[in-house]
Amino acid sequence: MSGIIAVDIGGTQIRAAVYPQQGITSTRVRRIATVSGEGSVFDRMAALIESVRLDETAEAVSVATAGPLDPETGIVIEAANIPGWKDFPLRDRLAERFGVPVFVGNDANLAALGEWKYGAGQGHNDLLYLTISTGIGGGVISHGRLLEGAHGMAAELGHVVVLPDGPLCSCGQRGHLEAIASGTAIARYVSEEIAGGRPSRLAGAANISAREAAGAAAQGDELAREAFQRAGKYLGQAVAGFLHIFNPSIVIFGGGVSLSGALLLDPVRASVQRLVMTPAYLDGLQIVLARLGDDAGLLGALAQARIKLSELSPTG
Amino acid sequence: MSGIIAVDIGGTQIRAAVYPQQGITSTRVRRIATVSGEGSVFDRMAALIESVRLDETAEAVSVATAGPLDPETGIVIEAANIPGWKDFPLRDRLAERFGVPVFVGNDANLAALGEWKYGAGQGHNDLLYLTISTGIGGGVISHGRLLEGAHGMAAELGHVVVLPDGPLCSCGQRGHLEAIASGTAIARYVSEEIAGGRPSRLAGAANISAREAAGAAAQGDELAREAFQRAGKYLGQAVAGFLHIFNPSIVIFGGGVSLSGALLLDPVRASVQRLVMTPAYLDGLQIVLARLGDDAGLLGALAQARIKLSELSPTG
Repeated sequence: MSGIIAVDIGGTQIRAAVYPQQGITSTRVRRIATVSGEGSVFDRMAALIESVRLDETAEAVSVATAGPLDPETGIVIEAANIPGWKDFPLRDRLAERFGVPVFVGNDANLAALGEWKYGAGQGHNDLLYLTISTGIGGGVISHGRLLEGAHGMAAELGHVVVLPDGPLCSCGQRGHLEAIASGTAIARYVSEEIAGGRPSRLAGAANISAREAAGAAAQGDELAREAFQRAGKYLGQAVAGFLHIFNPSIVIFGGGVSLSGALLLDPVRASVQRLVMTPAYLDGLQIVLARLGDDAGLLGALAQARIKLSELSPTG
Repeated sequence: MSGIIAVDIGGTQIRAAVYPQQGITSTRVRRIATVSGEGSVFDRMAALIESVRLDETAEAVSVATAGPLDPETGIVIEAANIPGWKDFPLRDRLAERFGVPVFVGNDANLAALGEWKYGAGQGHNDLLYLTISTGIGGGVISHGRLLEGAHGMAAELGHVVVLPDGPLCSCGQRGHLEAIASGTAIARYVSEEIAGGRPSRLAGAANISAREAAGAAAQGDELAREAFQRAGKYLGQAVAGFLHIFNPSIVIFGGGVSLSGALLLDPVRASVQRLVMTPAYLDGLQIVLARLGDDAGLLGALAQARIKLSELSPTG
């Protein structure tokens, strides 16, 4: 009985799951902490894969991980959280170890692929996906194909300037969407305004999170609400630009911060509506929440494997 | 002897040319003014096509025109300069008249296609094209395919915000790239600064053009030079974003204003270099001038016809 092993390497944990040839119900899922004192990340991940594989013959191993990486070569150019993964040949190392086809993709890109094949984006040939959590990642399906670019580094949608000379981004540049509308940015805005003397029910709290800000906003906190409105406004500005750039038929929001729902999406929609250059871009456009939740990475890796395997044997 | 008739509908003139099955040397080109007191634009264009066709049997007619339009249906949603072309079924009207396959595409998109097939972008699978003239248009080749979007309105690269609440754009929105870095915007900046009291050798001139500003800059005019530096800075900001979005291997600048060369491209390159999130996006990246000049529209239409005809008969 052959199956596909999907692996999702996150900042906190690595998950591996086995999927049968059809469907999206995994027959086995296991997880380990990404960072640990014992053994290299690669060796521990390989052991994790072994443990879900058991006696099954895997048809392929497909990995979702944070970029930048080159999906063509399977080389991880840099992985912020994983020591030693600099120009790391992840695909070749796994292929050597398991003797099956291995595919490696950017986690946000694969989440878009997962939502397209199995989630909120089914049936759409032109799809825009944004994941909003500590950072902002993106994925684009264009004419029924994942947008990757010349070296697989496309769709870094969090790293476009929305406010020149604005707040510092995690990437070192200024005024990027991620620096203004990510969960980190929302929380930072609340903290800074409180430090500047603004009243808020979050005043006095240490290490305010976007989730706490959402909770406060739900209870009527003016500052917290404003923080989401500000983020939503710039998100909407960026999305209006992405509509002009990609003309998608659906925009999907994933990631933890998107779970705040209308608190974020209402200002996004208002901003998109106001800033789109002609209403034709809104004709039939859906703006929706992602459906796959925490499984987006695994199911995206699964989708990647199925697409690549069918390309390898087009008659299969 | 069968050939392809390419038509380029510009703001000033309409050109039609016949191309043989191979190569890019037209056997006949004719032109008429776009706007005239006599007859409808469609009838005059049809007569123009007749006149280049003569006794040849055309294999197809392929038209480049300003959008917004839907290349799938060949309907021109709106044409600013042509009275009556609102939801105008250009493809069907031409097909009815000539009885051959007709293809209709956005002029900037087709210019990108032309540069890709026959010009500066040959051999690149991921290409970004920007045409800078009175406005700013764009075209993107992604994984060897023209980016069109769900309704053919993608790649409107001049209509992304580079400065929130900035100058008014021709489309009615504010702070778009086109409103800050087009020829019109460069000329307006010079005029406004002169009106505000800045010295310039262009002071006193009526209706300053971007070309005159380029001439003045070449002669050392400080204000004119600054106008191009400002445009180049924001162009570079937008291009850095487009690198993160598309990860192309080549960026091509076309349109009249790009002929100012280093005056514009030097600040663009400096800005891109400064604003890219990781140098990996610049690895092997070319930033070059377009090669097809005024023929970009015709040759883009030719490329469109050859691609579509080969899709119609894949074994041909």
